[in-house]
Amino acid sequence: MKGSGTSPGIAIGKIFLYKEPEIKVVKTQTEDPQLEIDRLNKAIEKSTNQIEELYERTLKTVGEKEAEIFTAHKMMLEDPEFIGGVREKIVNDKVNSEWAVKETADYYISLFENIDDEYLKERALDLKDVSKRLLKALLNIESGDLQSLSEKCIVIAEDLTPSDTAQMNKEMVVGFVTELGGKTSHTAIMARTLEIPSIAGVKDITNLVKNEDFIIIDGKKGDIIINPSEEEIKIYEAAKKEYEDFKTKLEEMKGKESVSRDGFKVEIAGNIGTPKDIDKVLENDGEGVGLFRTEFLYMDRDRLPSEEEQFEAYKIVAEKLKNKPLVIRTLDVGGDKDLPYLNLPKEMNPFLGYRAIRLCLDRTDIFRTQLRAILRASAFGNIKIMFPMISNLQEVRDAKAILEEVKEELRKENISFDNEVEIGIMVEIPAVAVHSDIFAKEVDFFSIGTNDLIQYTTAVDRGNQDISHLYNQYHPAVLKLIKMTIENGHKEGIWVGMCGEAAGDEKLIPLLLAMGLDEFSMSASSILKARWLIKNTSKKEVADMIDTILTLPTAEDVESFIDEKIL
Amino acid sequence: MKGSGTSPGIAIGKIFLYKEPEIKVVKTQTEDPQLEIDRLNKAIEKSTNQIEELYERTLKTVGEKEAEIFTAHKMMLEDPEFIGGVREKIVNDKVNSEWAVKETADYYISLFENIDDEYLKERALDLKDVSKRLLKALLNIESGDLQSLSEKCIVIAEDLTPSDTAQMNKEMVVGFVTELGGKTSHTAIMARTLEIPSIAGVKDITNLVKNEDFIIIDGKKGDIIINPSEEEIKIYEAAKKEYEDFKTKLEEMKGKESVSRDGFKVEIAGNIGTPKDIDKVLENDGEGVGLFRTEFLYMDRDRLPSEEEQFEAYKIVAEKLKNKPLVIRTLDVGGDKDLPYLNLPKEMNPFLGYRAIRLCLDRTDIFRTQLRAILRASAFGNIKIMFPMISNLQEVRDAKAILEEVKEELRKENISFDNEVEIGIMVEIPAVAVHSDIFAKEVDFFSIGTNDLIQYTTAVDRGNQDISHLYNQYHPAVLKLIKMTIENGHKEGIWVGMCGEAAGDEKLIPLLLAMGLDEFSMSASSILKARWLIKNTSKKEVADMIDTILTLPTAEDVESFIDEKIL
Repeated sequence: MKGSGTSPGIAIGKIFLYKEPEIKVVKTQTEDPQLEIDRLNKAIEKSTNQIEELYERTLKTVGEKEAEIFTAHKMMLEDPEFIGGVREKIVNDKVNSEWAVKETADYYISLFENIDDEYLKERALDLKDVSKRLLKALLNIESGDLQSLSEKCIVIAEDLTPSDTAQMNKEMVVGFVTELGGKTSHTAIMARTLEIPSIAGVKDITNLVKNEDFIIIDGKKGDIIINPSEEEIKIYEAAKKEYEDFKTKLEEMKGKESVSRDGFKVEIAGNIGTPKDIDKVLENDGEGVGLFRTEFLYMDRDRLPSEEEQFEAYKIVAEKLKNKPLVIRTLDVGGDKDLPYLNLPKEMNPFLGYRAIRLCLDRTDIFRTQLRAILRASAFGNIKIMFPMISNLQEVRDAKAILEEVKEELRKENISFDNEVEIGIMVEIPAVAVHSDIFAKEVDFFSIGTNDLIQYTTAVDRGNQDISHLYNQYHPAVLKLIKMTIENGHKEGIWVGMCGEAAGDEKLIPLLLAMGLDEFSMSASSILKARWLIKNTSKKEVADMIDTILTLPTAEDVESFIDEKIL
Repeated sequence: MKGSGTSPGIAIGKIFLYKEPEIKVVKTQTEDPQLEIDRLNKAIEKSTNQIEELYERTLKTVGEKEAEIFTAHKMMLEDPEFIGGVREKIVNDKVNSEWAVKETADYYISLFENIDDEYLKERALDLKDVSKRLLKALLNIESGDLQSLSEKCIVIAEDLTPSDTAQMNKEMVVGFVTELGGKTSHTAIMARTLEIPSIAGVKDITNLVKNEDFIIIDGKKGDIIINPSEEEIKIYEAAKKEYEDFKTKLEEMKGKESVSRDGFKVEIAGNIGTPKDIDKVLENDGEGVGLFRTEFLYMDRDRLPSEEEQFEAYKIVAEKLKNKPLVIRTLDVGGDKDLPYLNLPKEMNPFLGYRAIRLCLDRTDIFRTQLRAILRASAFGNIKIMFPMISNLQEVRDAKAILEEVKEELRKENISFDNEVEIGIMVEIPAVAVHSDIFAKEVDFFSIGTNDLIQYTTAVDRGNQDISHLYNQYHPAVLKLIKMTIENGHKEGIWVGMCGEAAGDEKLIPLLLAMGLDEFSMSASSILKARWLIKNTSKKEVADMIDTILTLPTAEDVESFIDEKIL
């Protein structure tokens, strides 16, 4: 059997088959609605207590970010729309609480699910979880027994809700397999956080296995073996050991410098999307933040963030990083990231549209507020500012002119900031890479954004399934543009980083090192592996091969060359 | 006053104000429907005769393509849906013919107008024209008097239908001004064909002027002066003379070679969209066709074109060109060009999507049929095959492999074709320009497609109004990619052409010449001007400035440099 691997690693052990208790809701009429309201209130109280307990437990065993979901759940139990709706239904229709809860929740769930909005879709999931809990409280159904696991096991379920995983005894769980979900589902994220293997999308598995079956799962490949042979167990035990040894090796990378085998030093930093992500970067010994995406401040809300809110968010990260560099990218919305309250135009090709710096230079009110907040935070750490989606030099000049005006404002108001704050740009549009010799004269650094650079260089929307085979980071033209950008940057004495996914790609890291990339910024979980790779690579040896690689005809040729001659 | 210039040139003269006679239709009941049917039949006969006369007249005075619209009109008068519907209404509702015509026509017009389909929208316009003619015949309203113009004049109208312009005495018309329409409206196209100035979109002008008013119009700038001063007339007379002298100079370019002042020869070819366009290219002394778009064969219809249909279309152009080169581009649909009968997926970013060669390598049935048709036509002229939207070399190899298979098929069937047919690719995706050194080893020619190349290189959808200021053919990065492509092509001994709009841009032509471009392919009407420009440019002189131009920071700098130092 096979599924889609959502968290790497190998687990070998007994199955714990988790099935949700069935909840049946029958409609009955009541003569005394107050009695039902009392029942409802007790159930809410019980549920709230459970949720608070789960919050505490998750905070301790996983982390603040993961625990937050239960704050949202608790708020739902206080929500006047939802709970008020249930109460009204009880009183008006003279029905039992269970029926009123089910009807009201179903109404909102289908409402949220049918609007094409990621945020509301997630709220629908939360509401499902909360209403199920409330119904269980009303019907006196005990929750599943994930809490009382007493033996190491691999949990197999149709799906797992945040409540399920929160109450789970995590000491005892060594892997997950679910029928539903994918890379971004709650279970997958949880598994990666706990660093245990996980596989999703395994159709019908809950009907094909039974409790106490023995199982092997490979969370990288998505492979599943039920009741394996002795031979198979041996093979996978060995693979598991190798994987764990490697993880130990990576642990040893903490506190070390990122220096190549032949002595060239680079910087390995992390990409973050919210202030909380910084903890993970520091845990993995990141040497800074090469990309702080600031969109989180603007999304999932109904108005622009204030200068103060932004300032606080930037400052906290800057302080936690102490003197390590923090590259803050100004707002990159538009494209696939819509902000309903800005009434952005519907576009035929949003990836080639009104977004990022294009929007900021048009809506300078938004841009100025953000720049003020960043500059103010620059007094508390080593902040650098980066502009996204630059396509011509006039945009750089316009953005810098606005920044100067904002600086002047702050000076007049006697607000301190780092007057020498470095200004850089994303190199993610081919025009900039091609003209990087000239751009390098007017900025302090480049950061190559490979995701978009590949997309525009090859004219392939990376989200389009029909042509995904054409999106390839090993395309020699992409590598040429990267090399050109690095060389042109160095000619003008500026540093060049990379914050696209390619920076953490183990096959590309040796090439990027050889081309002279100064900074590699990636997801926190890739940092130690990248350092290990750099330590085991000779920059000069690979540099001698670069010219050959850049004349290879296709991306496939490049990948094979790396596999055969470098790794 | 100002409008939008839709055909260049200056006209000075008296106004002829053309207002449509008003048509009032009143519903009356009839006891004898047969009488109404007889009236209808007579009106159809009269209208058909008028239309046939207009067809003949247009064929003689304008051309076959323009005359065709009247074939469509005639067919409408024979259409069983439309005329059958009118007859049915007369008989069933016992109403007068006028009412039945109006009601039936209005029904179909609003039906066609409300479907989002260019083809049906044009049919709605035709039906308006035809039904108006039929009503005039029934009501014995004489048509307007455009036919009896006896003095040179500038025609001013709310709008002009094909019937209006067809019956017009073209000898006497020296310009057009209309309230409605734009660059692509019928009047504008007609004016450009007749080479007389025309302005559209001049609100309310029919109420602001009267017959016999004197007027000056500048069809390039869109300027209008009503009852000008003597001084103004003098200025515009001079401008008119200059414009006409220049046109004479261009006429003198016919039959000449396209050679630069310092003796370097290039080829100036035309872009065509249908077989009929070839006449215009030959009239303007084009030295070949650098781009034959084949989409017309696939659009505005409900199924794929047969091999035979395609063969005929390619053959006729090849034959008319005699031995001059004909570059046929294989199907480039998808993106903004949908074919409903292929059920192409709806895409988030169609310009970065499943289109052109990407579709052809997937739907090889479509591709093979087209290649067979092109190869068969290659026996009748100097045909070259060009693949669009190439982004990596594997696609070139795959397309060539299919072509070889098709050749083998034809050989087995003893069908003759040009075995040495040249194979080229569009260079319109940045990856190909950047890697052109390697692509040049595997194709016979490059043709740079600047429209898409600019779009992808700068990540700007050229149709997006909000960011149109960022789409610029003078972006130095774009020029660098063009230079790189030409040089890399020449290093491998292949020729390099250009078929995007930039090839006909007067400011870019000197630069392209200096960079060594071998072939310039453009709209037929730009050919002579391009030749004149080349004749007046020294390749070597401009070549000495190229390095300087390519280090200019912005597109605006490049444009100013050209204006000041080259033109």
